[in-house]
Amino acid sequence: MLDLNKDNITQVVLERFANTPDPRLKEIMSSLIQHLHGFARDVKLTEQEWAQAIDFLTRVGHITDDKRQEFILLSDTLGLSMLTVAINNDKPEGCTESTVFGPFYVSNAPEYALGDDVANGANGTPCFVKGSVKGLDGEPVAGASIEVWQSDDDGSYDVQKPHLDSMQGRGVLHTDSEGNYYFRSIVAVPYPIPDDGPVGQMLNLTNNHPWRPAHLHFMIKADGYETLVTHVFRRDSRYLDSDVVFGVRKSLVVDWVEQADGTYLLEYDFVLNPSNS
Amino acid sequence: MLDLNKDNITQVVLERFANTPDPRLKEIMSSLIQHLHGFARDVKLTEQEWAQAIDFLTRVGHITDDKRQEFILLSDTLGLSMLTVAINNDKPEGCTESTVFGPFYVSNAPEYALGDDVANGANGTPCFVKGSVKGLDGEPVAGASIEVWQSDDDGSYDVQKPHLDSMQGRGVLHTDSEGNYYFRSIVAVPYPIPDDGPVGQMLNLTNNHPWRPAHLHFMIKADGYETLVTHVFRRDSRYLDSDVVFGVRKSLVVDWVEQADGTYLLEYDFVLNPSNS
Ligand SMILES: [Fe+2]
Ligand SMILES: [Fe+2]
Repeated sequence: MLDLNKDNITQVVLERFANTPDPRLKEIMSSLIQHLHGFARDVKLTEQEWAQAIDFLTRVGHITDDKRQEFILLSDTLGLSMLTVAINNDKPEGCTESTVFGPFYVSNAPEYALGDDVANGANGTPCFVKGSVKGLDGEPVAGASIEVWQSDDDGSYDVQKPHLDSMQGRGVLHTDSEGNYYFRSIVAVPYPIPDDGPVGQMLNLTNNHPWRPAHLHFMIKADGYETLVTHVFRRDSRYLDSDVVFGVRKSLVVDWVEQADGTYLLEYDFVLNPSNS
Repeated sequence: MLDLNKDNITQVVLERFANTPDPRLKEIMSSLIQHLHGFARDVKLTEQEWAQAIDFLTRVGHITDDKRQEFILLSDTLGLSMLTVAINNDKPEGCTESTVFGPFYVSNAPEYALGDDVANGANGTPCFVKGSVKGLDGEPVAGASIEVWQSDDDGSYDVQKPHLDSMQGRGVLHTDSEGNYYFRSIVAVPYPIPDDGPVGQMLNLTNNHPWRPAHLHFMIKADGYETLVTHVFRRDSRYLDSDVVFGVRKSLVVDWVEQADGTYLLEYDFVLNPSNS
């Protein structure tokens, strides 16, 4: 019969999960159990703190719905999302770097033709965005799918505005035969992640602000290449040094250039990693 | 400006949380971040697996309500609850050992007089329960509050039966002037933890059954003593070797003795740890 105590329990739990048929799930559960137990042991977690953690996670679960993903916010603000991105996107030198996906992507965004305005009514200073999509050897990638999404000048994504009846500030375009893309949108501004829930409380209690530096999201897909999920950041934005979700990489920060007429121009060339490279 | 990658991100995240004003919260967040990141790094967590984990936690959150606490079930089945109990209840030799609280406790259970039947209509074989509550030096503890809760012979707690309009199989009693207690109830049987949710899926995928060995829950409170949360297990029960929540300790397993008339007798003497000892 088992007689469990704080010294033998981790080994007993590991043995209980050792019959997991799928070897990858077994590996994951084994590491998870060791790290969870290691955490509780290292800090000598009290029963009251354990109960607070259960309550915190319960509130994270209850505020999460179709439009609000508090578990992603939690993962983002603990650096776990960006770590996962970094672990899985160790690409050859020269490829565009990846960053976090974030919680504001929506599938089935509208298709636009090159030159169209993806803002679709979102408020903001007009910005023309252009550049190319190439492979690692410099070959142009024609017909690549480019999905973009961004907040308006209030710092809100369309999904945060329940009264909207169409998508704003997001869309899908395709590169031309030369691998070039261009579209109209608005200038991105810094915005706070939703901070009226448990993750906001955590940020507050840990003296962290909820802000992200100004950025435009890109997801680029093309046959024969790895899908690229990334942002392009504004060099003159606040919070580049303290992005609440740890998404900034130097190679993704560029000048968004004000033009004589007050509109902006953003140029960025993407380099995709060939699949199975 | 930050340039985050998989080698430096953990240090950067730790620095960001280093300004946490409360030193205990700072210690907890620092250890949590290191163990979460260590887990992701050790298993080289893929982006798809990360998304599956977000989905799993979302489902744990959404099935949790006033009557169902799936986060506690998750903590229990990963051995984290029992580890926390063991860390915090390292008592002097001779004290009754603690075990997990479990998800089926309900506050404001009815008060009963010694000798009453706490089953209150729950189905099962009658069982008389008796014993004493003493301090570590053998002194009787008069007027100790004894809260008990248990499932019926279907293996269900009252809170799992939404049609009930009164509590069954739970109640609060007080020891007499000699520190003795006695009440009527029913024989406990093994039961599965609720396994129709994400935790049940996890148990299934890891080849674990959802069963707990037969037990009766006790929470004993008395001035001058640490509160004792524990179970008394049946020695002839199945699953003593494989309690899904890792709650079994040898000292808590005793004979529930069948009497000539087919009813049972359970005797157990509790020893409380003086406070601040
Ligand atoms: Fe964003
Ligand atoms: Fe129980």
